[in-house]
This record gives sequence, structure tokens and C-alpha cells, in this order.
Amino acid sequence: MSGRLILVPNTLDLGTLRAGSALPDLRGVLPQGVIETAARLRHWVCEDAKVTRAFLKRVDALVPLLAPLQALDIRELPRPPKGRATDPAPDLRPLLAPATAGADIGLISDAGLPGVADPGAQLVAAAHALGLTVLPLAGPSSLLLALAASGLNGQSFAFVGYVPQEATAQARRLRELETLSRQLAQTQLMIETPYRNTALLRALLDVLAPTTRLSISCGLTLAGGWSRTANVAQWRQQAVELPADVPAVFALQAA
Amino acid sequence: MSGRLILVPNTLDLGTLRAGSALPDLRGVLPQGVIETAARLRHWVCEDAKVTRAFLKRVDALVPLLAPLQALDIRELPRPPKGRATDPAPDLRPLLAPATAGADIGLISDAGLPGVADPGAQLVAAAHALGLTVLPLAGPSSLLLALAASGLNGQSFAFVGYVPQEATAQARRLRELETLSRQLAQTQLMIETPYRNTALLRALLDVLAPTTRLSISCGLTLAGGWSRTANVAQWRQQAVELPADVPAVFALQAA
Repeated sequence: MSGRLILVPNTLDLGTLRAGSALPDLRGVLPQGVIETAARLRHWVCEDAKVTRAFLKRVDALVPLLAPLQALDIRELPRPPKGRATDPAPDLRPLLAPATAGADIGLISDAGLPGVADPGAQLVAAAHALGLTVLPLAGPSSLLLALAASGLNGQSFAFVGYVPQEATAQARRLRELETLSRQLAQTQLMIETPYRNTALLRALLDVLAPTTRLSISCGLTLAGGWSRTANVAQWRQQAVELPADVPAVFALQAA
Repeated sequence: MSGRLILVPNTLDLGTLRAGSALPDLRGVLPQGVIETAARLRHWVCEDAKVTRAFLKRVDALVPLLAPLQALDIRELPRPPKGRATDPAPDLRPLLAPATAGADIGLISDAGLPGVADPGAQLVAAAHALGLTVLPLAGPSSLLLALAASGLNGQSFAFVGYVPQEATAQARRLRELETLSRQLAQTQLMIETPYRNTALLRALLDVLAPTTRLSISCGLTLAGGWSRTANVAQWRQQAVELPADVPAVFALQAA
């Protein structure tokens, strides 16, 4: 009997906590059942071992781990280049050895659901190729929370990851996404490294049509998090500065 | 001080429970903080009042509601045509009157996050237009769980809703999605009414290229739920019958 690959959601508060501020309560974003499942796992594959140990300490404070943290088997995924899918896939089967030997493995990323705008998809693909059971657990996704909070079209939407940083390529890409949104009647979602949030907002306001609706969600599930949706003409009338250390999701829908 | 529009996630078990079967534990898919927030809300706007009352009974069994169920203010959204965005939007501001008067309102759909592949987006848009705070709460989304469990590209993906039912239009649309997936290197996700799950699977296997990867997730978060990913050639070698009463998510990625 093989073990399963269990996809464990993480919180969305990575890197947003200043020294001395209290960690948000895990129970605000993760189901109790997920916390209990995480506490029982001995084998982990993760984006970052340090972040994973911090997560497991928070779990342990609510539901005691089955073994001391140092006794857990925590391995890191190979790092992909930021912001795009890696092809061809490296051989990840050694990471799945505990499951083929019969033990469940937890897969966790630094924030949200593993494999969504995040490393992990290739390990899941390798698990399917081996015939292992893949079990995704419910938790927060900044993309879906931002989409729900936007009021933009949730019947058809696309997440496109990061846009180019260079000004000309960026403007071209943003226009392309606006055209796609118009042609397909599809909300287009993107993300940016937090310290470039304000630069991306300025580019969006420069490039997009005044009637295009733009939604920004900043720090969702965190204290002080917010979502705002207006058309580009309305956004231009405000001088909005986005925080440089809080993740944001940008969504646009062309009129 | 205005009230907020709070987006409350629902479970994914709607309509999947046979008579006599036990309801899954709410704590397996909803954070304790979300259950507590739901228990404190007096005003609700929902997709279906009966489904919402059933949800609130499950909440009440864990955290007592602030008032008896009959005393809560539960109103239904106007019904949109299934499977596509409604334009132009009806005037939904009367539904938001409790918030403009200072009380929080919960928005809930029959399954998952309101406004995602679901009614609710227009109410959220109306809330933004009134300057109300919109607060999305973390919970399960069948789309994102299916994407995470697929092992397909989670750095770029699109959800396109339902495909046409008529055979020629359906085949054309599936080919179009496969082409989009190839051109944009983008996973394409779709859903179907459960009793047509097997028919959609057959159409996908007829139409798609043998090398295209296809992932099906059925009844995620439910007992017996599963995810399977293989290329079309491999799927064709199995005679898969999908359950006719359990929601499924279909995802494809062209090679």
C-alpha cells in the first residue's frame, strides 16, 4: 500500500511580519482538519525548509506534532527560475521514495497552495506518473481570494504570473492582457514582487484604457489587508502608494 | 461607519450526499475563524436560501449562531443564466442596505468561494462602487484544489467555465482551448454539470491530441474524491466512467 502526496496549504503571511509583531492565528486561515493532518506527517517536501519549520512550530502550538521537529524528514524541492514553469522536469522520484515505501508525504510551499503560482507542480506530476494518490487540502489562495474580492468576472479568468520588468516589454504585455481580457471576456490576474508593486500599478494606470476595471488586493488574510476595484480613470484620480513588503494581486477586466 | 461585505466560503459537498449519509465535518474544509465569523453574522446574501440555512445549521452545531436561524436576514441574489457572466448588472444596492446602515453582511454561494465560477461577483462590484469594505475569507475552491492536484502548470492557468453541449460546437471549443493552452503555455480548466461528466470526458478523449495532458478531479474534499493526471493516449487505454452526481473539474495542458 503506497503513501499519499498530501498538498498542505500554508498561510499568506510569509515575509510580511516585522520584528516583534505577533503571528496571525493559524486557525483564521487553515481548517482544523488540515492542522491535524499536518501534525501527523513525518515526511515533508517543501519550497524552503526554514519556512516549513516555522509553519510546523505554529502547528505544534495547536496540535502536537507526532515527533520533535528535528526528527522530521524535511526536504527541499529544487529551485526553479522565478516566475515561469520549468521544462524539462528534473527527476523528482527520489523525493517521493517515502510514499512508494508506504508513508504519506506532505508537500508545502512558502504561501498558499503548493503548485499554484508556486513550485510543486512537477512533484505532483511525478506522483501521478508513479500512480500515487494526490490529496489536496483546502486552504487560502491569494489569487482566488483576490478574484472573489474583485467583483470582476469569476466565470472566466486567467492567472498569468509575473509581467516583464523592462518598460517597453511590460507595456506591450499589459496591452496584450487587456486585449485578451476584452476578446475572451476574461479577468486577467497577475502578481509582482512586493517592492515593485507601486511601479506595476503606475504602469497599469499609464497603459490601460480608462474604462478598464482594475482590482488590487493587498495582504489578504492579514491585518490591514484590503481589496479595491475601480476603473482606470478613477484609479488615476488617487495617488495610491502600495506597500513594498506585502504581496499584492492585480486583476484587470477590459470593458 | 459602514458594515463590510464578508465573502464566506461554503463546503464543496452540495448535492453529493445521498439520503442517510453523514455530512462531512465543516472543520475539515473551513478554518475555525471563518466558522466563528459566520456564526456572528445577522445579514446574509446568498445564491440559495435553503442551502444557506443548511450551512448555518452546521455552523450552529460548532459555534452557536448569534440569533435563531429564523431571526436571521437571508436574501437571495437574482439568478443569472448558468455558466456565463450577466451583463448589464441589475441594481443590487438594496441588498447592501444593511452594510450602508452599519452592519456586516455575509455573502455565500452554494459551494466554494462566492463570485468564483458562481454568482456573487456583481454584488461585490456594487459594494466596491459604494465604497464598502470587501473581506474575503479563506476556504475551499474546487478549481484551485483541482489545479494544485493536477501537477499541470500552476504559473499560468485559465478557468473557462462550461463548454458548449452541442457536439460540433463542443469539439470546436475543446480544440480552441487546446490551441490556447499550447500558444500561451497555459493550463485550461473547465467544469460540467455532473450528469454530463462522462460525456465531456469522452469528447475530450475524442478531440484532444494524444500528447495533451488531461487531469480530472472528482469530488475533492469529499470521501472518495480523487485526482488523476495522464496524457490523452493513456486515458484512452482505460474505460473511465465518471460519477454522475459528483462535481468534477477538468484541466488540460497541451504538450
